[in-house]
Amino acid sequence: MKNLESLIKTYYDFPKKGIAFKDILGIIQDTEVFKELILKMSSNSVIQRSEAIISIEARGFIFGSAISLQTSKPMLVARKPGKLPGELIQESYFLEYGKSYLSIQKEAIQKFSSYAIVDDLLATGGTIDCVANLIKKSGKEVCGSITVVELLELNGRSRLNFPVETIISI
Amino acid sequence: MKNLESLIKTYYDFPKKGIAFKDILGIIQDTEVFKELILKMSSNSVIQRSEAIISIEARGFIFGSAISLQTSKPMLVARKPGKLPGELIQESYFLEYGKSYLSIQKEAIQKFSSYAIVDDLLATGGTIDCVANLIKKSGKEVCGSITVVELLELNGRSRLNFPVETIISI
Repeated sequence: MKNLESLIKTYYDFPKKGIAFKDILGIIQDTEVFKELILKMSSNSVIQRSEAIISIEARGFIFGSAISLQTSKPMLVARKPGKLPGELIQESYFLEYGKSYLSIQKEAIQKFSSYAIVDDLLATGGTIDCVANLIKKSGKEVCGSITVVELLELNGRSRLNFPVETIISI
Repeated sequence: MKNLESLIKTYYDFPKKGIAFKDILGIIQDTEVFKELILKMSSNSVIQRSEAIISIEARGFIFGSAISLQTSKPMLVARKPGKLPGELIQESYFLEYGKSYLSIQKEAIQKFSSYAIVDDLLATGGTIDCVANLIKKSGKEVCGSITVVELLELNGRSRLNFPVETIISI
């Protein structure tokens, strides 16, 4: 996609020293690029084959809900500890800068049979792998993941054993 | 809106004792209701009159980005400390359960002249007031706020001196 890469800014040593943070927020300030991106993500086979979408907190919500509107597919959210009420299922993951947890509402994930995982960025693959484990633990199908950006040097896709789609790789 | 209220669940003593948490996530699992809601929010005068949208972390992103796609209006995000890279402007607020801060990217807010504030819920009005102050501090116009739900008993709108729109009041 033309222009997409030029809207992604790199911030060095954020949020911690040694991390080169990719800021994708410029994309949602360019309405033409955002629309083209959402249409492209929506038509991807990972989304098309899924019954529902799971977006990862918090930037994943931005792309997930627009895809949900575009495709009329329901959306669930995977959130960090303390954010979701009700009965949850939880998994831990290691990411570039520490260990954390993601959870999903148990009742919600029972509603649909197969899921596409949506996030802004594929880095180490830790969070996406974590959400895939939550889906599998619930006895549901992982159709794959789709992100706006993949960071090639971290080779996150090597740990993921399902279709891993991205709009651009940098 | 029919069905909207039935999709909102109340969880007592979450995230802290004494809080009755309104969970709006059921809405995004019902694609017809979600679509109707986004069309309704998108056609509201607060959105229509604004040049851009500011969504409040994190559930605000869900509604904001769908409205952004629907209306072709650019979106900015107001986020909690440590989440946004680059030069920021910051404001504090008091909410139902403590004091916190919201920030916006300085470069982004300079791009547009007027803003609609989008969030899931109007409770005490603390976060929406905080974002309005960020917009004013930047010399930009606050067109108003729009939420999915307003909690009438907290009377959040009394502190907000701009149009305050909501889809349902409970």
